[in-house]
Amino acid sequence: MQRYFTKLKQIPAEYRLEPDIFHHAINVMRFKPGDNFELVTANQQVALMELMTIQNKQATAKTLKTYQPQVELPVSVTLLCGLAKNSKPDLLVQKATELGADKIVFFNAEFSVARWDEPKAAKKIPRLQKIAQAAAQQSQRTVIPTVSFVNLLQNFAFAKYAYRLTAYEEAAKHNETHQLNQLVQKIKEKISTDAVRPKVVAVFGPEGGLAATEIAFLQQQGCILAGLGPRILRAETAPWYLLAALSFALELG
Amino acid sequence: MQRYFTKLKQIPAEYRLEPDIFHHAINVMRFKPGDNFELVTANQQVALMELMTIQNKQATAKTLKTYQPQVELPVSVTLLCGLAKNSKPDLLVQKATELGADKIVFFNAEFSVARWDEPKAAKKIPRLQKIAQAAAQQSQRTVIPTVSFVNLLQNFAFAKYAYRLTAYEEAAKHNETHQLNQLVQKIKEKISTDAVRPKVVAVFGPEGGLAATEIAFLQQQGCILAGLGPRILRAETAPWYLLAALSFALELG
Repeated sequence: MQRYFTKLKQIPAEYRLEPDIFHHAINVMRFKPGDNFELVTANQQVALMELMTIQNKQATAKTLKTYQPQVELPVSVTLLCGLAKNSKPDLLVQKATELGADKIVFFNAEFSVARWDEPKAAKKIPRLQKIAQAAAQQSQRTVIPTVSFVNLLQNFAFAKYAYRLTAYEEAAKHNETHQLNQLVQKIKEKISTDAVRPKVVAVFGPEGGLAATEIAFLQQQGCILAGLGPRILRAETAPWYLLAALSFALELG
Repeated sequence: MQRYFTKLKQIPAEYRLEPDIFHHAINVMRFKPGDNFELVTANQQVALMELMTIQNKQATAKTLKTYQPQVELPVSVTLLCGLAKNSKPDLLVQKATELGADKIVFFNAEFSVARWDEPKAAKKIPRLQKIAQAAAQQSQRTVIPTVSFVNLLQNFAFAKYAYRLTAYEEAAKHNETHQLNQLVQKIKEKISTDAVRPKVVAVFGPEGGLAATEIAFLQQQGCILAGLGPRILRAETAPWYLLAALSFALELG
């Protein structure tokens, strides 16, 4: 079923399709009166809608039922990713959205070949945000991850996150196999006793990995250095591994 | 360190670089005598090599040391994937290689938009095999996954695999959360008592998913229907989720 996100918290009795949704539903999908689609509200309710009228470039729909599906990870995961080249950020955002990330923050890492300044980020972020929105619709999520940029790792507010980790290639090479599992067990305990979703931040390097100075800084910020298995994962693959591992450990009983 | 795969089982005392390796090491990487690279032999040994001489389009190297790293998943995973469109198979193969798959087999699914016949497969497979080789080198694996094609799901030899599962979107929608974990626990027990790597086959649909007739056939073949979390994953993302979950459960203690 086609799903759209609306900024409304409540769907009015007679819902008039917002311009973006109108364009996609009527011009692209060619929905006719009687056709159904879903609206996800700002407070994560899903409403099953039926299209009623199309007139003068306006369309209305009514709500058939509403429900609140549990499709979000039981942890809120922020990925803090060193900028990678070319279309890598696009792919990273699309797949991380499918796999349940809540926030994706790019930063200029020491070994980043592509670098952004604020004006460049202001151009790039809206596009990535659209990719996140499309992926959230397709994967039937009720939250659109936010994509953002910090110029420097030092400008990121680590203190907001109860759980902090860095995916570290050298850890994998040296056969570090315990840190991620230990962190996941701690999160699992927390979830079983606490109604609030714990917040996790996970840091990933760009293609060239993280520099020793960055690793030292991240350790000072309380990030554990976790191996993600013995194979060397590319910059974009490592966050997907983490998200899948968290889903497997926390969502599949 | 640059890594190459050789078909040799033993590296001779004076190793003469094979044509493909010569081309990449000398023409692309511009290695000089004294430079190091790694060779992975057909029996998964890794040899640290030192380049000795370059003369008349031939180069020789000597072995400094050999070792046998444990970088392969403790299960042998075969992915049986419905053909997807465009460059999706490329991306699937590249990432599944990084994440540890042993075999990737494509089949014409009922809902596949792209379809191959044998001549087309004969053209497509060598390219995908090269992608697997490059990804295996980059991710420091000691095995190159094999990529192949079966025309029909019915032509696949399910009986060779002790563990069989199908990733089923409808299972995810109906909140199926136990099957994968149960299978993983069984595999974990098997690994702890048995020296031979167990063989798993996992079946994934193309973009449109698997048809009811395909699901019925797969159930007859003993495939459990497993949900991979509550979010709907795209055709190429689902196998990566499975591989990451297996790695997390079996490699990270």
